[in-house]
Formats: sequence, C-alpha cells, structure tokens
Amino acid sequence: MPFFHDKGDDLLSHIKIVLVETTHPGNIGAVARAMKNMTMTNLCLVAPKIFPSAEATARASGADDILAKAAICQTLSEAIADCQLVIGASARCRTISWPEVNPRQAAELCVLSEPRQTVAIIFGRENSGLKNHELDLCHYLLRIPCNADYSSLNIAAAVQVICYELFVATNDVPEVAMPIGDKGECPLATGAQMASFYGHLHEALIDIGFMQPGKSKSIMRRLRRIYNRIQLDTKELDILRGILRMSQDHQKSK
Amino acid sequence: MPFFHDKGDDLLSHIKIVLVETTHPGNIGAVARAMKNMTMTNLCLVAPKIFPSAEATARASGADDILAKAAICQTLSEAIADCQLVIGASARCRTISWPEVNPRQAAELCVLSEPRQTVAIIFGRENSGLKNHELDLCHYLLRIPCNADYSSLNIAAAVQVICYELFVATNDVPEVAMPIGDKGECPLATGAQMASFYGHLHEALIDIGFMQPGKSKSIMRRLRRIYNRIQLDTKELDILRGILRMSQDHQKSK
Repeated sequence: MPFFHDKGDDLLSHIKIVLVETTHPGNIGAVARAMKNMTMTNLCLVAPKIFPSAEATARASGADDILAKAAICQTLSEAIADCQLVIGASARCRTISWPEVNPRQAAELCVLSEPRQTVAIIFGRENSGLKNHELDLCHYLLRIPCNADYSSLNIAAAVQVICYELFVATNDVPEVAMPIGDKGECPLATGAQMASFYGHLHEALIDIGFMQPGKSKSIMRRLRRIYNRIQLDTKELDILRGILRMSQDHQKSK
Repeated sequence: MPFFHDKGDDLLSHIKIVLVETTHPGNIGAVARAMKNMTMTNLCLVAPKIFPSAEATARASGADDILAKAAICQTLSEAIADCQLVIGASARCRTISWPEVNPRQAAELCVLSEPRQTVAIIFGRENSGLKNHELDLCHYLLRIPCNADYSSLNIAAAVQVICYELFVATNDVPEVAMPIGDKGECPLATGAQMASFYGHLHEALIDIGFMQPGKSKSIMRRLRRIYNRIQLDTKELDILRGILRMSQDHQKSK
C-alpha cells in the first residue's frame, strides 16, 4: 500500500539537507532560501567553516528561520544517525560502482517510499565534494544530469534542483502543457464551430473585397492553418466573428 | 512528425535566456554558470544595471565564455524580435488570465515543439519581476511550483531549475529508480536462486547453532523480508553464500 500524504501536512519534514564542511557562508544562506522556497525546513550543517554569519543571513533573504533552527554536527555519522535512507550528491564517477539516482528518481525514493523513512540528502564541500569514506555511508549516490564538460553546479543551485523535484513529487503538478487556448475558463472551439467560422471568414473576405469568389484557395488554407494552430476557445471565436460581422456591415454601409 | 534532435548536436541552441534589468551582477554570473551546467549558451541581457563586472565573472566560475558572448539589448522587444515562442517567468497572479506553464511543461514546449522555434525564456528584475506590458509580450507565463508563503526564488536558482528541465527533456534521463541491487553489472537474483539461498541460510543457521531444526520460523520470515527487500544481484548472492559456507566449515572444524 502506498504511503498517502495528508495535503496540508508538512510533506517533506522527514527529509533533511546535510551540508558537509561548507566553505562559503553565502552558500549556506542560499541553500536555506532554496529549501524554504520548496517548503523544506530541516537543514543540518556538518563542521561549517563559518557559521552563523551575516553573509549567510543576507543570502537567505527571509529564510533565516531555517538557519536559526539548523542542526550543527561535528561529523557526518552524527548527522545521519537517525536516517534510514541516505543519499549523497556526487559529480564524480567512483571506481566501485554504487547505486545511482538522478533528482527525479531521488524524489521518488524519498517521497513515495513506504513506510515513510527519515532521509538525509548530503552535499559535500564546494571544491571537492564528498570524500570516499563519506560516500560509503550512502545508500544511493545522487547525480544531477548536466553538461559532461562543465558539471559542477553551485551547491545552492544543486539543492534548488533537488528540493524542486521533491516539491513536484509531493504536489500534483501537471506534466503536460494545456493547449494555448485552454485557460480553463471556457471550452475550446469544436470542429463544427471552426468550420462555421471559416465559412464566415471566407464570406467576409469576399464581402470586403479581399478575395474573389472561387479563387484564392491557397490563402484560405493558410488562414486555416493559422487559426487551427492557436486552438481558439469559444469566447475568442465570438470575438473574431464579431470583428468579421463589423467589417461586413462597414462594407455594406459604404 | 516530431522533431528529432541529432545527439551530439547543440540541442538547446535555439533557446535563449533573457534577463531584464538585473540589479546584481553576481546574479548574472550565477545565471551564466547555471546555463553552462546544462549546455545552454545563449544569454541576452536587457539593460543590465552593471555589466560587465568582476563580480559577475567571479560568480560565473568558469562560465565566463557565456558572459563574453552575451547579447546586450536596450529593450525587451529588441531581445525577442527573432523569437517565435516567448515564455516569461512570473511569480504573481495576473488579473487577466494568461496561459501558464510549469518548468516541465515549458521544457516540453521548447524542446518537443515542431518545427523548432527560436525561443526566449525571460526573467525579470530581482525585486519586482516583469512588468505587465512585458508579460503581455509572452505567449506563456512560466510559474515554478513552490511554497505559496515564500515564493520568490533567487533568479539564478530559477534559471537553474528551468535549464535543468530543458536538459532532462533533451537527454534520455530515466524517470524511475532502479532497484538498489541493480547496478547494471550483473543480473538480479532469480526467485529460484533466492529460494536456494534461503535453504542454505537456514541450514547454516542450524549448523552454527543459531536455530534449532523445526523451530524459529518467525526468524526465517524476518530474514527473508530483509534479503528480499534489498534485491540482491547474483554476485552479491555469491558473496553471501561464500560467507555461509565459511561459517559452516568453521563450525565443523571446531
């Protein structure tokens, strides 16, 4: 049986972001902001070089509550002591192959796993990442798909991508775009309505002298292609037909 | 017919990131880094407050080639003059409803649309975003799903999320995690192999005096649950059976 989240519950509270020996306090602040943007609240800092820091607070930009309640640990083992699932971010390939996940897969593991586990997602030092003995503590390595020739994301950018995937996985975010005309307000025009519109358009174009009866078939085809592509809804169709009527009336009144 | 990308081609070269009146040059540098991480190269700056700048170059952290060839425009209209598809990032709701997409949908539109269109994805000012007359130039508004109570992402973080989705959409990134034992090296153990292993385990546990024949059924069930859950591959199974054999030999040699 899958685990069901109560909407309105703190859906990601079982997941903590762990930063190991972060050098720049600005990055710690930017991580806090990235987390809060995606409703994540549990930050754990392992032996940060400089913390707390005014620079971290500035870059947190309103997410200083995350910084204020961040846990500080001296070792990674201490940070993950309560975690059943440990995922470590890694840009490098290891000689020993290790189970690897991308951010979407990691989100699936963290959010859809049953029963709900306490999860740590670990990010290493800005310059050198996680050491081998730290990666050995992980069940999975997390690799963000990226440019093979320029693969090192800023740590806060990497956290943003992961937290975004976690948020998407816990919220019903649609995956496929609606056609451009469909704003959910009124229905898209049917084929019959479009056929009627094209008849009206053709008639109006003759009325105003733009086309001659029985000629200009290729222009009508082009117009059809244009209007079909934008997928008009019925309200938009009414507006266009109103314009056609007005142009016909105007012509007749001359 | 869908558009097929040649692998190895510059898959995202038809998409440009447009930044409007960015205040902090550090953010411009961070955007360049986020883009290059995801193989995006076309950056366009509309009336940047300070550019070029040492701070932008420092934060670009090796993506200064993107900064060096960035286009500079005075108006947004100029920046999107060559674009068939224009998508504007917006955190606010508009009174007039406008077609809206999330990052995954935007990536679908940009990458899978046929024929390949020149695309602009626009990000507004750090504090106030895009103005209404700028949003009016967009075919779609882009909204990143996030915390309703704290919705303003750092501009480089927002660009990172979009570029990540574009990269994922153009590369065959798997969506579902492989079971933890499956590293693609050797096949997972079959049911028969696991049954044989459990027989061996049971025998070994009796041999070493951990269990008595005909008793301790509940312990065997627990052990089965453990080993089933980790989905052993055949190499791992060989290792475990080697351990069982050694423990049996050790017991017999006493």
